[in-house]
Amino acid sequence: MYSAPVLPGETCVPPGGQGHHAGGGWIVGHVTGTAGAGGAGGAGGDAVPPLRPREFAAAVLRGQGQVTFLPSVAAGGVFCLALTAAGWEYGLYGLAGTAVGTGAARLLGADRDRVSLGLEGFNACLTALGLAAVLGPRHFSTALLALAGCGVVTVVTAAAGHLLGPLGLPSLTLPFCLTASATAAAAPGFRRIWHQGETLAAPPRPATGPTGLGPDDLARGFLSGFAEIFLAPQWHVGALLLLGLLVASRRAAAVACLGNAAGMATAWALGAPAAGIADGTAGYNAVLVALALCGGFLPARAATLAYALVGAAVATAAGPAVAALLAPSGGPVFTWPFVLTTLVFLAAATSFPRLGAHRRGAGPAVG
Amino acid sequence: MYSAPVLPGETCVPPGGQGHHAGGGWIVGHVTGTAGAGGAGGAGGDAVPPLRPREFAAAVLRGQGQVTFLPSVAAGGVFCLALTAAGWEYGLYGLAGTAVGTGAARLLGADRDRVSLGLEGFNACLTALGLAAVLGPRHFSTALLALAGCGVVTVVTAAAGHLLGPLGLPSLTLPFCLTASATAAAAPGFRRIWHQGETLAAPPRPATGPTGLGPDDLARGFLSGFAEIFLAPQWHVGALLLLGLLVASRRAAAVACLGNAAGMATAWALGAPAAGIADGTAGYNAVLVALALCGGFLPARAATLAYALVGAAVATAAGPAVAALLAPSGGPVFTWPFVLTTLVFLAAATSFPRLGAHRRGAGPAVG
Amino acid sequence: MYSAPVLPGETCVPPGGQGHHAGGGWIVGHVTGTAGAGGAGGAGGDAVPPLRPREFAAAVLRGQGQVTFLPSVAAGGVFCLALTAAGWEYGLYGLAGTAVGTGAARLLGADRDRVSLGLEGFNACLTALGLAAVLGPRHFSTALLALAGCGVVTVVTAAAGHLLGPLGLPSLTLPFCLTASATAAAAPGFRRIWHQGETLAAPPRPATGPTGLGPDDLARGFLSGFAEIFLAPQWHVGALLLLGLLVASRRAAAVACLGNAAGMATAWALGAPAAGIADGTAGYNAVLVALALCGGFLPARAATLAYALVGAAVATAAGPAVAALLAPSGGPVFTWPFVLTTLVFLAAATSFPRLGAHRRGAGPAVG
Repeated sequence: MYSAPVLPGETCVPPGGQGHHAGGGWIVGHVTGTAGAGGAGGAGGDAVPPLRPREFAAAVLRGQGQVTFLPSVAAGGVFCLALTAAGWEYGLYGLAGTAVGTGAARLLGADRDRVSLGLEGFNACLTALGLAAVLGPRHFSTALLALAGCGVVTVVTAAAGHLLGPLGLPSLTLPFCLTASATAAAAPGFRRIWHQGETLAAPPRPATGPTGLGPDDLARGFLSGFAEIFLAPQWHVGALLLLGLLVASRRAAAVACLGNAAGMATAWALGAPAAGIADGTAGYNAVLVALALCGGFLPARAATLAYALVGAAVATAAGPAVAALLAPSGGPVFTWPFVLTTLVFLAAATSFPRLGAHRRGAGPAVG
Repeated sequence: MYSAPVLPGETCVPPGGQGHHAGGGWIVGHVTGTAGAGGAGGAGGDAVPPLRPREFAAAVLRGQGQVTFLPSVAAGGVFCLALTAAGWEYGLYGLAGTAVGTGAARLLGADRDRVSLGLEGFNACLTALGLAAVLGPRHFSTALLALAGCGVVTVVTAAAGHLLGPLGLPSLTLPFCLTASATAAAAPGFRRIWHQGETLAAPPRPATGPTGLGPDDLARGFLSGFAEIFLAPQWHVGALLLLGLLVASRRAAAVACLGNAAGMATAWALGAPAAGIADGTAGYNAVLVALALCGGFLPARAATLAYALVGAAVATAAGPAVAALLAPSGGPVFTWPFVLTTLVFLAAATSFPRLGAHRRGAGPAVG
Repeated sequence: MYSAPVLPGETCVPPGGQGHHAGGGWIVGHVTGTAGAGGAGGAGGDAVPPLRPREFAAAVLRGQGQVTFLPSVAAGGVFCLALTAAGWEYGLYGLAGTAVGTGAARLLGADRDRVSLGLEGFNACLTALGLAAVLGPRHFSTALLALAGCGVVTVVTAAAGHLLGPLGLPSLTLPFCLTASATAAAAPGFRRIWHQGETLAAPPRPATGPTGLGPDDLARGFLSGFAEIFLAPQWHVGALLLLGLLVASRRAAAVACLGNAAGMATAWALGAPAAGIADGTAGYNAVLVALALCGGFLPARAATLAYALVGAAVATAAGPAVAALLAPSGGPVFTWPFVLTTLVFLAAATSFPRLGAHRRGAGPAVG
């Protein structure tokens, strides 16, 4: 539960391997830091003083790691390298976005521990990457707009927390999805930021093309599934991202791999075109759902793993539904299937005691 | 209030005729059973033991009855016959769907009384029928997907309860609408489950055709309005469903008839094409709204009957709005107009003391 | 905080100029009247007695003023004149709509002080105007439908208050947007109310046309920005509306002008076509956001002014996004960008202590 809104009296169950807890200390340090003093960065005592540069840098890297719910400096560093491997612009957008979001949250007076944990950075990271992908990273207008978007997503993050917090639900990447989808839908209405002529709007089309998968498709799809979490299509970027997961937590990496496989299997069984599996679009939501439901916001155990894999399958099936809903308006799918599926499965979890889901303090589960 | 989330301390006001309360006993038995021991099925003592086969069968039939908010074994049985009259596949989908949903909820550890009352079955029933109607009932892929959908809708039901329960609102058929709409929108993206070539997506079209109604149109439309609740278009199926309502509660049947008439009158007054009234699409949401607002979740009295008929008219007018919103993505309307209208009217009811709506315990009605 | 849901124990901070508080007394009288006895109208003692004709008339004019969050009889009167300048039908629709909404709320037993403050009138005013604009004001069917819509929007207002109140959020013009958008989307499906042949549905189009602005465009756009709040395009109507704001509160007028300028500057910077700036569509949401965030629902001070201007810019950028989402279904934008942006910024405000936003009693801001 490393990135969940840690409620008083809850036991934290960080899913990282035990080795990290004992050895590195930075995960546990900052999670428990929410309830009390500072973390591994050395800041003790009161929460009022601003972040020192080194702390800020750590918060930014953790913010990159939080895209996969891992407040890990090391994972964030590897993710940064992976993005740079997709293109130096993307590495820059991701890093600058995380920094701007983290800084904006701190300036606005957001909770210091949330900032330290990187919880104010990952939505900004994705927003910057999303705008770069949709509007083109090399336009100056895109850079300016991404800057503004990283500030706005900080406000949206606070709003999402205000609305979902009382329900015991995390905001996940909902702020990113809202901000990036709104910007992508609005962009063709503004001539100085839209440089592509036509809009992306089109009626949804039925799937075409072969459904048979070769080993090459499987391998590429599996690795690209990790890359698409950061909106990158390249398989070698995905390989680096998987490495980052492994560095932070072997258990999280295993869960992510299982989620990815569940997503790909679901897509194949339902008859998704092979091209859509091989490019990673069938797997990235499944990876995120699995990470969130097994170890992220529910304890990691057998029952939640099964629940997480069902969720991964549902998110994969829901992918084309989101695409069909947004296609006529010209909005990309982003991580909407992950967000919606995970919120439903987390909200439902308190009703099913056999799942072993912890019940939140005031969780009202009638209905 | 037979299917409302029964809050502690509330007085239950089941809308069934008094004869049922005194004679049959199964409605009251199981509603009050929520607060204490088992029900008419004979299960006393602790709530832990699993459902016995006969209890499970009763829960499944009640689940079919709950589509019209009636936890009635007899109504469920008649509804089952009516679906079979629409086609044996539909009878099978409806019954199997209710059974799978009821069983899945029990396996996941959902509240025993909710399961006994059929509250975990009716959304699954409709989901199975909805997928059969959209994807074609005779494909093996449809049967498998309906099976999976009935499991998923159980999770969605728990999530909806978690979100709406604290607001004092029931989840109605929202879980069915969400699951079936998502599946219908996603289906054309998967080749093994979509066998129709093109998608259903199309821009909304203005109404055409004559608006004058003959007696034959009126009679067919009235009866088909009941059938469309279960997504069936045949008037004789509707006649059987009305019989089922009568068997369970004469008052509920009368309210349903008035709601149907209010819906048809609204559609005619606004100028809906006669064809859309004669096929029942103008009435089914109105029937459900009337049942929910007069006797279902508000006490049955003159003021709520008037309120319910206004709601029935609003749901009928809202029908083409939902159709226009979903048409570009290829989603059928299902019972969205009923769900949205009823939630608005129930949420509003606590603010209007003159309506005689009971105020829920912690119902915060500021704003 | 003149139109906010006044929670017990909160200090009211009406943003009108001090002159109004000392001199006129009607603003403060009726705001504080929420907690105790009647207001300036003279009704003392218990809240049970009905509104006298003169009180009702004042409530209706205040309802017109509440479109800009000003419970001012004088502003409402000027707004009424402004609408009549746009066309006598619009003056009539606006006034009759406010009266019907106010009366319907009183009949249904809504809170007397809410009714006196005009809080039950402004959404009905806009609904009547919105239906007149979309369906044509001179059709008898439009007048009847507007009448019905003003009753329905009262129910939707109560529902929105029930859902948003516990979160400490006002319902703004959300009830109007929901009701008018649903009616506009549904209308082409009914032949007796739709007299225009084709639907308004169309795929979103990229912006075209020059982006350079002349002084004439700027002046017209600035004034029309006020007019578009009431769905009128004429600059002279906007001039009268600005006069109404000035009459009610010089501070509110100044904030509105700054918001308008921020919106127009944002639209120009992003490259909106000059035609879309000159007709006021770039400014009206920005005006409303600024009024709501600086003085309306947050205290008026430097920090909230900056926050409000950021919100005004965001709402302006979000405008084409809403348009793109609704275009395929044929729904006009109405004030959706204002509503969505303001709800997000208000929900976020409690998390940022440096903004100086007051924290609501039980505002849970985790997440």
